[in-house]
Amino acid sequence: MPDGVDSTLRTVRWNKNRVVMIDQTKLPNELIFVEYDDFNQVADAIRNLVVRGAPAIGVAGAFGLALAVLQSKATTKDGLLADLENARKILFATRPTAVNLGWGLEKIMHTAKSGNSIEHIKELVVSEAKKMAEEDIEINKAMGKNGSVLFDNNDTIMTHCNAGALATVAYGTALGVIRATRESGKNVKVIATETRPIQQGSRLTTFELKHDGFDVSLIPDTAVGYSMANGLVNKVVVGADRIVKTGHVFNKIGTYQVATMAKQHGIPFYVAAPLSTIDLETKAEDVIIEMRKGSEVTGIGDKKTAPDDINVINPAFDMTPPELISGIITEKGVARAPYEESIPKLFQDGNS
Amino acid sequence: MPDGVDSTLRTVRWNKNRVVMIDQTKLPNELIFVEYDDFNQVADAIRNLVVRGAPAIGVAGAFGLALAVLQSKATTKDGLLADLENARKILFATRPTAVNLGWGLEKIMHTAKSGNSIEHIKELVVSEAKKMAEEDIEINKAMGKNGSVLFDNNDTIMTHCNAGALATVAYGTALGVIRATRESGKNVKVIATETRPIQQGSRLTTFELKHDGFDVSLIPDTAVGYSMANGLVNKVVVGADRIVKTGHVFNKIGTYQVATMAKQHGIPFYVAAPLSTIDLETKAEDVIIEMRKGSEVTGIGDKKTAPDDINVINPAFDMTPPELISGIITEKGVARAPYEESIPKLFQDGNS
Repeated sequence: MPDGVDSTLRTVRWNKNRVVMIDQTKLPNELIFVEYDDFNQVADAIRNLVVRGAPAIGVAGAFGLALAVLQSKATTKDGLLADLENARKILFATRPTAVNLGWGLEKIMHTAKSGNSIEHIKELVVSEAKKMAEEDIEINKAMGKNGSVLFDNNDTIMTHCNAGALATVAYGTALGVIRATRESGKNVKVIATETRPIQQGSRLTTFELKHDGFDVSLIPDTAVGYSMANGLVNKVVVGADRIVKTGHVFNKIGTYQVATMAKQHGIPFYVAAPLSTIDLETKAEDVIIEMRKGSEVTGIGDKKTAPDDINVINPAFDMTPPELISGIITEKGVARAPYEESIPKLFQDGNS
Repeated sequence: MPDGVDSTLRTVRWNKNRVVMIDQTKLPNELIFVEYDDFNQVADAIRNLVVRGAPAIGVAGAFGLALAVLQSKATTKDGLLADLENARKILFATRPTAVNLGWGLEKIMHTAKSGNSIEHIKELVVSEAKKMAEEDIEINKAMGKNGSVLFDNNDTIMTHCNAGALATVAYGTALGVIRATRESGKNVKVIATETRPIQQGSRLTTFELKHDGFDVSLIPDTAVGYSMANGLVNKVVVGADRIVKTGHVFNKIGTYQVATMAKQHGIPFYVAAPLSTIDLETKAEDVIIEMRKGSEVTGIGDKKTAPDDINVINPAFDMTPPELISGIITEKGVARAPYEESIPKLFQDGNS
């Protein structure tokens, strides 16, 4: 294990002028850390899903540019910026539709341009990339602290998909709230849904919670109702891919039915997400839900589980309406219904 | 394809003194018919899940005894009955907890004992086994006809698990209702849930419906809510493993949440099952739900998708309460709420 990797999983970090990442393609079978000193290796890692999750790849891109600035043999400021721009293009091309990747790269380029000399630019870029990683963790920890008061000692908390350390730099959003609840001295157990078709629940959530010593149980997605009807679940917390001003939450396919079952059983259902996830402009009905390839559902890996050429409906996300949501946990506080009032307030004063 | 196999799938049949079965272990990748002339082969087939589904294995067992009676070299009636009893034990030991298997074998043994001579017993046994197969189909067809009036032209019908031809001798229960609806001249489409962890939906339901020329789409179990919220589903029909007098339905894990989502969206939710599925004695709260091994959820085949030694909650069935059920379709008519009145009536007069 590389120097400085602590017991809680850290998806991506800077260590002695190298980028250290968990190779998520090896999970859950092996926990392997990979180290890179070339930005091209980071580009390959993003492309090949060694690192995934929006916040994590934004920071991975920034660290890629930090490697590029150290690798550059340029002797002029313009030469260095040209080398960086070349690296930016290569890194961005790996996942061009990932909003956070573009954001992370642009932030570093902006910082680089403000430098006075080659040495100054190198210092600025490395320190800005490290700061971005730390900020991601700080946001998750603040979110966790705000959320932890909503959970009780001996709760069993259900979660869906992976809104954990492995989707962020560390700590996680929904799983960050669960970590913070334990850190506040409460004993909690977790039920993780498998989350077909990509199985982020069984592959990643059970892995990272088990790694951190949580009592975690895996269920097939079909057993959500059973678990709730049989009193096995006290609370639910999930992450979000996008939240609109009215409190409609877009998250991994299956979230909507978990929320519906929770409502039916009087179980509080929380969403944990940073303010950067909140989209104040778009209306719920205008959000387009990405349809993914059928082969994700007709098999697992090279194991085929359905006939050839079968029609498949495979939406990546679904929409959970605000009436099913007990609260939206952010780094600035917890928003409650009516969300059209409470969500904009988070941006104004930082408190709810 | 053996002689006499028609376009609709027939899971198990008698053909020229042989038993012909679909080898379900090869589905969905290959449709292979296997022929047996030895009852030991039938025992192996039941043991190895070449044939599965309660009604199907009941009839498979009966056909196994029909082979045994033809195989016997006994020269006395007592010798023949002893050979049959030996075969019965071997067949029964393959799936000793399967209620229908015991029932099918006992029925044949009872018939055999009523014969007057070796030849008479052979005739009686073969004809009784064939009759049992035909009766299973007749029940399914009657159920289908009773259910077909509940569905409209251009409906898209969601189903969960496989309550189809492949679980019965032919035609199926829930899928029998869908077949009958099409036969009544209505155009219908089907959405099949994957049905984790065993994937009867993707492996069997999509296979048999595609084989019969239905427009069928597969969804992951997580996309039930999305499909309903987006207007893709008009009705739901599922099978049942056990129905109690109060109308509580025990069926494949996940049925309860499909029913809840249907209720939330005002979509009629029907259950199709023969009277033999109805248990008038047991109370809902006394039905024990079998927990299955965790390895079904932590992987698919030899593909591992979760960490080693993870806790798993893997119930085989769940309970859907009567308030979520629009009607229970049987061969004797459709029962509606209040079920405590309508279900016993099915047994009294055969009409609802």
